[in-house]
Amino acid sequence: MNPLDKKVGILGGGQLGRMLIEAAHRLNVDVTIVDPQSDSPAKQISNKSHIDKDFKRSDAIIELSNKVDVITAEIEHVDTKTLSEIVAIQISQSEILRAGSSLELPVTQDASVNSIHTYVLPSPKTIEVIQDKYLQHKVLFENEIPVAEFEACNNYEHAVSIGTRFSYPLILKARRGAYDGRGNVFVNSELELKEAWDKLSSNLVSSTGEEIKDSGIYAEKLISFTKELAVMVVKGIDNEIVCYPVVETVQSNNICNLVIAPAPINGLIREKAEKMACTAVKAITSVPTSINLKVKSGEAPISIEKISKSAGVFGVELFLLDNGEVIVNEIAPRPHNSGHYTIEACETSQYENHLRSVLGLPLGSTKLKVNFAAMVNILGLPNIFNVPTPCYNSTEVMKSIVADTLSVPGSTVHMYGKKEAKVDRKMGHVTIVANSPVELSQRLRAILYIVSGKNYNNVHPTQFKQILDLNTQNIENTYDYKPTPLVGIIMGSDSDLPVMKLAADQLKSFGVPFELTIVSAHRTPERMVEYAQSAKKRGLKVIIAGAGGAAHLPGMVAALTPLPVIGVPVKGRCLDGVDSLYSIVQMPRGIPVATVAINNADNAGLLAVRILGGTFDLYSTGMLDYMDRIRIEVEGKIEKLESVGYENY
Amino acid sequence: MNPLDKKVGILGGGQLGRMLIEAAHRLNVDVTIVDPQSDSPAKQISNKSHIDKDFKRSDAIIELSNKVDVITAEIEHVDTKTLSEIVAIQISQSEILRAGSSLELPVTQDASVNSIHTYVLPSPKTIEVIQDKYLQHKVLFENEIPVAEFEACNNYEHAVSIGTRFSYPLILKARRGAYDGRGNVFVNSELELKEAWDKLSSNLVSSTGEEIKDSGIYAEKLISFTKELAVMVVKGIDNEIVCYPVVETVQSNNICNLVIAPAPINGLIREKAEKMACTAVKAITSVPTSINLKVKSGEAPISIEKISKSAGVFGVELFLLDNGEVIVNEIAPRPHNSGHYTIEACETSQYENHLRSVLGLPLGSTKLKVNFAAMVNILGLPNIFNVPTPCYNSTEVMKSIVADTLSVPGSTVHMYGKKEAKVDRKMGHVTIVANSPVELSQRLRAILYIVSGKNYNNVHPTQFKQILDLNTQNIENTYDYKPTPLVGIIMGSDSDLPVMKLAADQLKSFGVPFELTIVSAHRTPERMVEYAQSAKKRGLKVIIAGAGGAAHLPGMVAALTPLPVIGVPVKGRCLDGVDSLYSIVQMPRGIPVATVAINNADNAGLLAVRILGGTFDLYSTGMLDYMDRIRIEVEGKIEKLESVGYENY
Repeated sequence: MNPLDKKVGILGGGQLGRMLIEAAHRLNVDVTIVDPQSDSPAKQISNKSHIDKDFKRSDAIIELSNKVDVITAEIEHVDTKTLSEIVAIQISQSEILRAGSSLELPVTQDASVNSIHTYVLPSPKTIEVIQDKYLQHKVLFENEIPVAEFEACNNYEHAVSIGTRFSYPLILKARRGAYDGRGNVFVNSELELKEAWDKLSSNLVSSTGEEIKDSGIYAEKLISFTKELAVMVVKGIDNEIVCYPVVETVQSNNICNLVIAPAPINGLIREKAEKMACTAVKAITSVPTSINLKVKSGEAPISIEKISKSAGVFGVELFLLDNGEVIVNEIAPRPHNSGHYTIEACETSQYENHLRSVLGLPLGSTKLKVNFAAMVNILGLPNIFNVPTPCYNSTEVMKSIVADTLSVPGSTVHMYGKKEAKVDRKMGHVTIVANSPVELSQRLRAILYIVSGKNYNNVHPTQFKQILDLNTQNIENTYDYKPTPLVGIIMGSDSDLPVMKLAADQLKSFGVPFELTIVSAHRTPERMVEYAQSAKKRGLKVIIAGAGGAAHLPGMVAALTPLPVIGVPVKGRCLDGVDSLYSIVQMPRGIPVATVAINNADNAGLLAVRILGGTFDLYSTGMLDYMDRIRIEVEGKIEKLESVGYENY
Repeated sequence: MNPLDKKVGILGGGQLGRMLIEAAHRLNVDVTIVDPQSDSPAKQISNKSHIDKDFKRSDAIIELSNKVDVITAEIEHVDTKTLSEIVAIQISQSEILRAGSSLELPVTQDASVNSIHTYVLPSPKTIEVIQDKYLQHKVLFENEIPVAEFEACNNYEHAVSIGTRFSYPLILKARRGAYDGRGNVFVNSELELKEAWDKLSSNLVSSTGEEIKDSGIYAEKLISFTKELAVMVVKGIDNEIVCYPVVETVQSNNICNLVIAPAPINGLIREKAEKMACTAVKAITSVPTSINLKVKSGEAPISIEKISKSAGVFGVELFLLDNGEVIVNEIAPRPHNSGHYTIEACETSQYENHLRSVLGLPLGSTKLKVNFAAMVNILGLPNIFNVPTPCYNSTEVMKSIVADTLSVPGSTVHMYGKKEAKVDRKMGHVTIVANSPVELSQRLRAILYIVSGKNYNNVHPTQFKQILDLNTQNIENTYDYKPTPLVGIIMGSDSDLPVMKLAADQLKSFGVPFELTIVSAHRTPERMVEYAQSAKKRGLKVIIAGAGGAAHLPGMVAALTPLPVIGVPVKGRCLDGVDSLYSIVQMPRGIPVATVAINNADNAGLLAVRILGGTFDLYSTGMLDYMDRIRIEVEGKIEKLESVGYENY
């Protein structure tokens, strides 16, 4: 069977389902959505008939399983019990084929579960482990993946004793049914614990419909982190695991509002986070399921442990700690808000890759195809007067906001087709692509301003301003995008700084992010090796190295990195800098150093800008402007010289 | 009214309509499709009710106009007569408002044309001019846009006399109703003219349904061209005109099969083509319409000339001639096959920009967001046995082909949902994005191979091979992608060649496209200025300049371009090359030259590769491999030295 002929069923028809169905259309893959709303976001963009039932209902799942070849979900709060029964029958069937006629198929809660050929991907076990956040943490911990310290609470008294051990503040979390911050309570001291406990325990839910045997609550140590990160991981049906670049996510009121790709962090940390995310998904999809095989003779069933096939994309949320360490926060077994940007920015989107993985097709390339990208959610704004004037009816304001975003180049808006713009409801998102860090920063700032709704506070400034100050989207002034350095300026000694700072000044004037430090070839040789070898991974594109006398630094660094290295011969006390010049320029065949004039670090900065101009248009345009400026400067001098005469100049 | 609240009607529901509706969904714009097929490609991806009528029928257009605010088309063969009536009423209405009560609304063929607020974009006049290819040529010619010599044929005898004047071969073309090469006949000599004339005149059609008063045929001089080019132009409702980068299109059997973006041609020609395309669209959308205003008193109507608002995207096809000149071939008033690539490769797709322009929203950025892209059509293959075996039923083969394309990284497939894979029918397309020219070439070759169907000639090799040889998609072996040079190597004299060729050898070994020539600062100063000033526009990213003695070339070139310039000091007869070195490296503040060691053009080549590595991953990886290789080379020498001893080495 051609994998493209397989029919796909999706539990849930929200925006994630909508973007999945967009990807399915391109591949001509038949998709059936299960969602109670007959014109849910996903169903709007398909002329097929779907199933208009709650995706948590067992009969809806059974109906779907009889219609499709693969069941997947756009949400993790699904009925894993029914899904597990489908998988149990499948496994029983294959065991009967293998072990012979002593076994028989189990009787299921619903006799119509007969779709033994329907895959459930990711596997119900994977979803089950993820649904129980305590269990999720436990699986990660047991697989040596760093997570915040955590412990299940048997009862309130147990929680008190955990509090003493963990010390405050800590977080009490509902094990199940939590999302977007709901189900988490921050506890600052033992005094607050009782209230938090009562609040949480009164709202406990189980999405599987089963009785909860534990207290339903666990405690987590509060971690102080510098950034939140996320990695979208794709697991193929045959254990192939690939991932998208790690992104920074910025939350406000526990709702993901902003995603920056790639995350503006040291490339070595990026690598670590991506590896960790892949390992985490591998662990979470490798938990075996217990299956009771029914024996024909009527004896007790045989219980076997089996890792059932699991596949799909997974959103792995991580914390970057102050010390540079990375830990996993939690995992979602589906396309994720932090992966929306992949539609415009990556070679294959998370949605297409989810479909490819559950259909058993080759996984697509997860590489960024643009230099920089960001994603901003469009959330429902408060409707203060509840009257349909254009500026206060939130649905109308929403539409004006969408129209405004179109004026920002490089932005693509995705509206989900939700009818009512309720406060903080995810109505759509904007993806921004950019060629250079400066361009990303400018475009992002413009979009954040528009999405905040501030364009519309001119009608009733005071009232609307109050609303906007409370607005969860109001991160425009709090988030500061700091791109990672593109150029590293190094010098053998602080005595070179007066010369080398001219390179830094030039880079600054062109808006090039850079780093500057001392690296001595002769006094800190190991540091030099480490600096040069990690430079590319850390994100540098050019290194400017200055040194005097027996000036080995530029050439040695060039021998340890594939990046272009610009050498600045710094003039010493004797030989007028010719010693430095020869030491830097006369490199042997194989390892070039781009040498500039003696003490001319200005030109080193300008050369770096010219080199970066090949990748980032902005710097190339900037260089043309600069060349114009220096021409005009000379023209001014010409004019003065000619008007005052050479004697009076 | 918020432009996003406007309802859009599209005449035609094929693949272009489908991709328009995809863009509309993201903006939550309400779209109604007019197409006789109830599950046409566009309708499949919408749960709305559409109009299931032929879009050429007047009543379908009237029905649509009463339902939507803007009518646009995905095909130019529409009923411009009815569309013109809608516009005429609109203009009459505004004239009545302006000129007072002496005028009244005209009576239209259908009394139900009352939708005076419905825009038709592009304007019916624009579409009318384009429908008549002779008229289209005439408008372009009269606006001084270069086109192939052409003349309307009054009758056969006139065609004979034109043939004598134009000389053979020439092309006879149907003025109306032609597409994908249908309606064009190549005439090699006067002997063939009669047959061509009869063939064409027997098939004349008018899409407007009106009686044709001319012969319906015109003659065009056959132009010998090196490449076919295309530019997608976007015209906003307020005369703003922007365009996408010019692409190369490769046809086979008159069907566009392959598109390369950007076109691998000299950047100066690119610029010329883009400018010409914009001017052509401006001309074609500025043809005034004659409107007869009905006068109340019963006197003769007043006739006025009016340029009605026109907007939308336009596909402008051009020819690049042997002498570097560019001429316009023809224009399509709609999204175009040559613009499919914009979905994955540009900051805003042609589909979204079409919607933005007809809705009066800000036009989106047309910039490429990836370095390189290509588009390959997936055409229906012949079904030789007419039996449903997987390898010969063309629909099944098609599906296998689609699945195969997914194994090529950077490819995105768009299948249009057409049920039957008839021969040469456009079933879908694949867009390829790539970071470097080498990557594009590799990915393109893989896709062309897959789309040709050759993976499936293993079952009955002989028969299938015959089919494939006839296959119009079989351009895999005929199209040779030659990327434009990224590096320019120049030297002051041919005597520098033995040194400078080492740079060329290095670039070749890394697969970097380059050009090499002689440019002397002192003997060809104007050539030097022209070379340096045009370098960036032509597409170069780095210049390597070698010179000896009073070596001015590198520095002078650097003063005339924003590109990084690598200087190679060539050793002359005296001073051991120190003269050259100082002349090149000791540049004044403001204009850097990246200087390498004396005579070390090898290192200049390697430095260029390192610089390009910042933009093109492949070269950076290649540099790491190279550094590994030279390390291993030395290790081999170490081993030999240690095993044979220094005396015997």
